Amino acid sequence: MEFLVHTEVNIPHGLYTQAEIDEIYAKEAERGRELGDAGIIKRLWRIPGRRANYGLWEAADATELHKILSALPIYPFIDVEVIPTAAHPSDPQTRDRA
Amino acid sequence: MEFLVHTEVNIPHGLYTQAEIDEIYAKEAERGRELGDAGIIKRLWRIPGRRANYGLWEAADATELHKILSALPIYPFIDVEVIPTAAHPSDPQTRDRA
Amino acid sequence: MEFLVHTEVNIPHGLYTQAEIDEIYAKEAERGRELGDAGIIKRLWRIPGRRANYGLWEAADATELHKILSALPIYPFIDVEVIPTAAHPSDPQTRDRA
Amino acid sequence: MEFLVHTEVNIPHGLYTQAEIDEIYAKEAERGRELGDAGIIKRLWRIPGRRANYGLWEAADATELHKILSALPIYPFIDVEVIPTAAHPSDPQTRDRA
Amino acid sequence: MEFLVHTEVNIPHGLYTQAEIDEIYAKEAERGRELGDAGIIKRLWRIPGRRANYGLWEAADATELHKILSALPIYPFIDVEVIPTAAHPSDPQTRDRA
Amino acid sequence: MEFLVHTEVNIPHGLYTQAEIDEIYAKEAERGRELGDAGIIKRLWRIPGRRANYGLWEAADATELHKILSALPIYPFIDVEVIPTAAHPSDPQTRDRA
Amino acid sequence: MEFLVHTEVNIPHGLYTQAEIDEIYAKEAERGRELGDAGIIKRLWRIPGRRANYGLWEAADATELHKILSALPIYPFIDVEVIPTAAHPSDPQTRDRA
Amino acid sequence: MEFLVHTEVNIPHGLYTQAEIDEIYAKEAERGRELGDAGIIKRLWRIPGRRANYGLWEAADATELHKILSALPIYPFIDVEVIPTAAHPSDPQTRDRA
Amino acid sequence: MEFLVHTEVNIPHGLYTQAEIDEIYAKEAERGRELGDAGIIKRLWRIPGRRANYGLWEAADATELHKILSALPIYPFIDVEVIPTAAHPSDPQTRDRA
Amino acid sequence: MEFLVHTEVNIPHGLYTQAEIDEIYAKEAERGRELGDAGIIKRLWRIPGRRANYGLWEAADATELHKILSALPIYPFIDVEVIPTAAHPSDPQTRDRA
Repeated sequence: MEFLVHTEVNIPHGLYTQAEIDEIYAKEAERGRELGDAGIIKRLWRIPGRRANYGLWEAADATELHKILSALPIYPFIDVEVIPTAAHPSDPQTRDRA
Repeated sequence: MEFLVHTEVNIPHGLYTQAEIDEIYAKEAERGRELGDAGIIKRLWRIPGRRANYGLWEAADATELHKILSALPIYPFIDVEVIPTAAHPSDPQTRDRA
Repeated sequence: MEFLVHTEVNIPHGLYTQAEIDEIYAKEAERGRELGDAGIIKRLWRIPGRRANYGLWEAADATELHKILSALPIYPFIDVEVIPTAAHPSDPQTRDRA
Repeated sequence: MEFLVHTEVNIPHGLYTQAEIDEIYAKEAERGRELGDAGIIKRLWRIPGRRANYGLWEAADATELHKILSALPIYPFIDVEVIPTAAHPSDPQTRDRA
Repeated sequence: MEFLVHTEVNIPHGLYTQAEIDEIYAKEAERGRELGDAGIIKRLWRIPGRRANYGLWEAADATELHKILSALPIYPFIDVEVIPTAAHPSDPQTRDRA
Repeated sequence: MEFLVHTEVNIPHGLYTQAEIDEIYAKEAERGRELGDAGIIKRLWRIPGRRANYGLWEAADATELHKILSALPIYPFIDVEVIPTAAHPSDPQTRDRA
Repeated sequence: MEFLVHTEVNIPHGLYTQAEIDEIYAKEAERGRELGDAGIIKRLWRIPGRRANYGLWEAADATELHKILSALPIYPFIDVEVIPTAAHPSDPQTRDRA
Repeated sequence: MEFLVHTEVNIPHGLYTQAEIDEIYAKEAERGRELGDAGIIKRLWRIPGRRANYGLWEAADATELHKILSALPIYPFIDVEVIPTAAHPSDPQTRDRA
Repeated sequence: MEFLVHTEVNIPHGLYTQAEIDEIYAKEAERGRELGDAGIIKRLWRIPGRRANYGLWEAADATELHKILSALPIYPFIDVEVIPTAAHPSDPQTRDRA
Repeated sequence: MEFLVHTEVNIPHGLYTQAEIDEIYAKEAERGRELGDAGIIKRLWRIPGRRANYGLWEAADATELHKILSALPIYPFIDVEVIPTAAHPSDPQTRDRA
């Protein structure tokens, strides 16, 4: 099942050193690569001008999706909105399978 | 350039016969198939419970995108929000090209 | 998979006779009973003071849920928001199964 | 009387040790189990991607509900919206009692 | 149980004669008087500049409240928000009863 | 003149000891009792699940109301929305005086 | 007592002839002049680009204000928000009177 | 003085023939060209996917701007938001004049 | 040119001594008096229950207005919304000048 | 491709010395000048009363725009909304090129 996931990152000022912040982002990038390799993150788009993104995620259901999202290194610093999606009969990628 | 496009359909009650409405949807489905074949609509997801969708569209720029959207058979009846996207370094589909 | 579904009904004034409206509601009540018997609608709560409700729906995924919602007799007159839910470790009904 | 309760958790960064936070969640989980056993929390759903949930709570009235909510270990850190519900004639669980 | 009820009236233009509208309001005023006499509407305040009001309603629970609201002559034309209230320890009217 | 007053309390974490917070609330409760005795606070309802309330206040005008509100012990920690009210012809408490 | 009053005008298309609309506006302008002469409307500002305005109104209280607003020729076609105001100690017009 | 002006066009369905609508747009385009030639409309951007635009308008003040906007052929069908702008010290076009 | 200016004051807790806060307000009151004497602030209304106000300001244009607002002693602590106003033909104070 | 960019600046109180803040703004002003010289920032307007602006930016696409925005000295302190724009047939600056 595919989900559109809208994520906004907000690390509060004054609590972490730049090295700590860099490490959070490095771990997140590494974890993102693994999730991409595993086919769980299928697409990721930056929202221009923001520390934010839209992603296309694949998971068995919302429970599995939550397990993955809540284990992200950046999880304590993100605000996430999960948008459920249903198959669209005109979706180019799936329409000929039905 | 890729755009996320959020579309809500609203055909007002009482102005069109069911046959007219069916024809609008049939033409739209046909046009959607052409845009999918042309690689302009790359993905389309239904928002469950609504006559609405999110789509991933490819166009040279916002001007070309508008030209295509405003020529849709369903255009007089839709409310559209275009969300611009920038490349994300962790996007699985594009990360190894850079 | 369980979904919370928020539905607002709005039948425009002046387009339907009272008999037509009564028939829509009668068909909807009948269909609602079938969906309840089938375990698809598990709970339904009226939002006081409104032609609106929250429901707890069970479906294989959002695609199946959309198919069911879009076939409701009242579908042309409702505004629907689907809220995806993940399992909660403290949910009394499911916690001891895991 | 049943209430839908929407809860968002927000423990501010930088004020508590991880051990303190873990203890808050442990106490909350324990209290949640007691409330589930007592039939006060009837259902609990995680909002995917968030430290947030929807719950179905049973209480004599809003006053009793407030007493229970405001005594939760997590109460100082939550933002709560209580949605009152009325019986719906098509609710599968209650329709045949009337 | 007391509820604060926020009501906005909207009778669409062009569908009813002035006599019909006057009759709706007359019936509503009469019904309002009965509900006041019965202690169900305890207070009613006009929102200045609008066909709208806040009311303090007393009902056994939200189900009874909905039954009363949905039977109002003006019900087809109102948008209602029910705000549940819990007893406040400093409420002058109830504090000495506890 | 009566006003509906919606108040949300927010004492920031980490700046005050529990004893200081308790003292603020104790002073507020004492002041609330005085205002109730004086007929200035006529009713007070807790918003369930929140440190928040709706109140029915009586004051000569908005200037006097502001003077009273801004002198509350809890004033530095509250967000207040004042809703002006006009007499409603169907208000049970005032309708027979006119 | 002074009130800031925000008014948006919306006369629906297709129900009135231009002559009828012109007459509504003419009556409203005439009534506005009377209210200005009476010192009830003290100031009136157009919101640029809209059939809308902010006004500074003087009335004994919200009840009197509502009586005047609801008798305006344009009343059936306006959406009104009344903003109560309290005296400000630095208001140039009133500060030296206190 | 420069203003950013956000305009959304909404011609209701079912009230005008296509010829009438075409004529409104033709007159508007002609008037837009005149305003561009006069230096009043300095820039105009389409909001993609919508009958809407942002414009950069020059006028002596908001009063003159309103006079121009409210005389547009399309004025009965638009929703306009005027955003006032102040000179920015880093604006490339004006920074060296100061 | 007149502007309606909506200002909300928010001095964060825990960063300033009461003496420092008092000094900010004292300077602001003094500056407000000067601006009132100069005819720049023409009216000022407190929003009841809040550290907030609406003001009627006179300035040559938005650039001059910004210069004055951004030099206020309280400027680092305020959230400001400037509402541009156009002359209204029924404004009692200006209608006879035109 | 042109973008309208809405930027709100928010440097939290209590974390930086005035000298540090001044340095951020000085660097930003310098960088803004460079971007103006390079034709990337084409226009910049202050939102009156706020540390905020609207800008007209030119970039190859949203990816390039994000790269530039995220490298601004002020980037850690801004909230940015990018509004995509399409060519408008009545835009005075581009209409005669087509």
